[in-house]
Amino acid sequence: MNQRKVSIKEIAELSGVSVATVSRVINNNGRFSEETRKKVLQVIKDTHYETNNIAKSLRMKKSNTIGILVPDISNSFFANVVQEIESILFKKGYSTIICNTDRNEEKEEAYLRMLEGKMIDGLIVISGVKEFGSTAINKKTPLICIDRKPKDTKSTILIESDHYQGGFLATEELISKGCHNIAIIIHRDFLSSSKERLLGYQNALKKYQIPFKEENVIHVTVEEKMSRTEAAKAALLQKISEGYQFDGVFALNDRLAIGAIHAILDLGKKVPEDIKVVGFDNDPISKYCYPCLTTIRQDNMLIAEQACENLLALIDGTRKDMKKHQVIPVTLVSRAST
Amino acid sequence: MNQRKVSIKEIAELSGVSVATVSRVINNNGRFSEETRKKVLQVIKDTHYETNNIAKSLRMKKSNTIGILVPDISNSFFANVVQEIESILFKKGYSTIICNTDRNEEKEEAYLRMLEGKMIDGLIVISGVKEFGSTAINKKTPLICIDRKPKDTKSTILIESDHYQGGFLATEELISKGCHNIAIIIHRDFLSSSKERLLGYQNALKKYQIPFKEENVIHVTVEEKMSRTEAAKAALLQKISEGYQFDGVFALNDRLAIGAIHAILDLGKKVPEDIKVVGFDNDPISKYCYPCLTTIRQDNMLIAEQACENLLALIDGTRKDMKKHQVIPVTLVSRAST
Repeated sequence: MNQRKVSIKEIAELSGVSVATVSRVINNNGRFSEETRKKVLQVIKDTHYETNNIAKSLRMKKSNTIGILVPDISNSFFANVVQEIESILFKKGYSTIICNTDRNEEKEEAYLRMLEGKMIDGLIVISGVKEFGSTAINKKTPLICIDRKPKDTKSTILIESDHYQGGFLATEELISKGCHNIAIIIHRDFLSSSKERLLGYQNALKKYQIPFKEENVIHVTVEEKMSRTEAAKAALLQKISEGYQFDGVFALNDRLAIGAIHAILDLGKKVPEDIKVVGFDNDPISKYCYPCLTTIRQDNMLIAEQACENLLALIDGTRKDMKKHQVIPVTLVSRAST
Repeated sequence: MNQRKVSIKEIAELSGVSVATVSRVINNNGRFSEETRKKVLQVIKDTHYETNNIAKSLRMKKSNTIGILVPDISNSFFANVVQEIESILFKKGYSTIICNTDRNEEKEEAYLRMLEGKMIDGLIVISGVKEFGSTAINKKTPLICIDRKPKDTKSTILIESDHYQGGFLATEELISKGCHNIAIIIHRDFLSSSKERLLGYQNALKKYQIPFKEENVIHVTVEEKMSRTEAAKAALLQKISEGYQFDGVFALNDRLAIGAIHAILDLGKKVPEDIKVVGFDNDPISKYCYPCLTTIRQDNMLIAEQACENLLALIDGTRKDMKKHQVIPVTLVSRAST
């Protein structure tokens, strides 16, 4: 394998196009014919040319790479949003570097430093911590936050679902089906999204003149090596064993909701006849669990589109008038559990 | 915001440690005290030092970054393996760059070129194409394949589940519960893993002297905007409408299996009384669908551990005697569907 290093100039000569065109093909940013693309890529293949983005980005000051921090890729909402973003950005000529931060602040910082070093053109953050605001990233790097509030709400764009509306719709669904004593199951109560969902719950109760009771708020702590479903089930069973009574459950995500259903079924009660349940997220699991779960659907596609559109506008400097807080409506998906 | 650029040398002076120590702290590769780490990180914070990995990797020839290609992060098996790998590598001082390739060969190539440009120290590939073998990556870059066969089986390490054993166990479970006419539902029949699972099915039939019938092999094509569950359901309903009869189903993944269950329930038949079903993957959904699904569990943790161990040995050059094909045992998880 004689891997002689060839230069971008040689690639250009061999392909019969300019150096700039070769660079555009490598970075996949649009203005060249399909024929040119094929020709250049063939020469690259034939010559084992190694795209040295590093030297290139030092020269061109643009890496055509976007970094994205995600707290947990096994969460279907995050995974779908990230996939959608990757797909949109790829069509626009950008590669997406996905970093899984495990909801761990130290990891978030380490990955931000890594991304900063890789000379990304922009950054999308779904933070796992209370309020995102790191000094590890250059303040000039274009940045969009999704779902999790940034510290600096004045200059950072936040795109998120209307969590308040979601909480309101979920609770209203339970009330309209006859529930009067509705438990709310909360995990990660420090998140702004959780707070908004709780507020929606409280205001729906108020609208229907049902008093809010502190005892209906069930906080779930998920221990290591325990699923959210198991943790919610255990917390609800514990509460019931202390004499707690209720006729509806609004769980702040679908995994917690399924845990609640399992606790209820285990006690020989029926869903939805005895107790009705609503989740949040429209996780694929909500469609196939038994009984199928009524839930709140977040518009992953629109969140991804808006995040990309805003980020690319920041990078290109074409627009500066974007709203700092962009709220995407949610919808109720009514199924067998209510 | 006076963001004067400080050098690593200044950081070292301000922290009272050597340049090498600062570098070790930044790269998080182990040999420094917690006290030193805190001191250096504080100085970095205070001075807004930007870790310029690019200049650094040009100098040091090591980026402490590992790239990983994954065909679909919304697939729970892939997501779990990738999370586990990230977690192990981070503890060893490496950052993981995750690239979602969408099972798209062109994207795979583009991301490999990007990773090559970012000077990764090693690469883990779960390919979405038939046989992984790209010229976009330098042949000297340490490489491990997971789950999907590389073209070059002589020099590339492949770590995968024992798909043959999985197919055998799943089929044997159905036979032991009284099935004689077992459908096998296959999606992506070009994958080596699918072929092995089919072979396990065939050999289990042979062991129990049940003839293999071509008509029992159901191929599912998933159209765009259709889930695997919907596609499997439609394919099975179509086949049944043509007069097809069967008493068991082995589906090559859990999403397909749930589609089969839905088709069977839709026709007014019962699972497992009339028809028994086994899936593959132990997707979280298999635990919560109705009835709960008997499935084959892959050992994600061990696959991740072995991939990292092998990759780091290749990078460090400490071992060269690793087996090229490493097969991880699977287990049957027996639930209500059989």
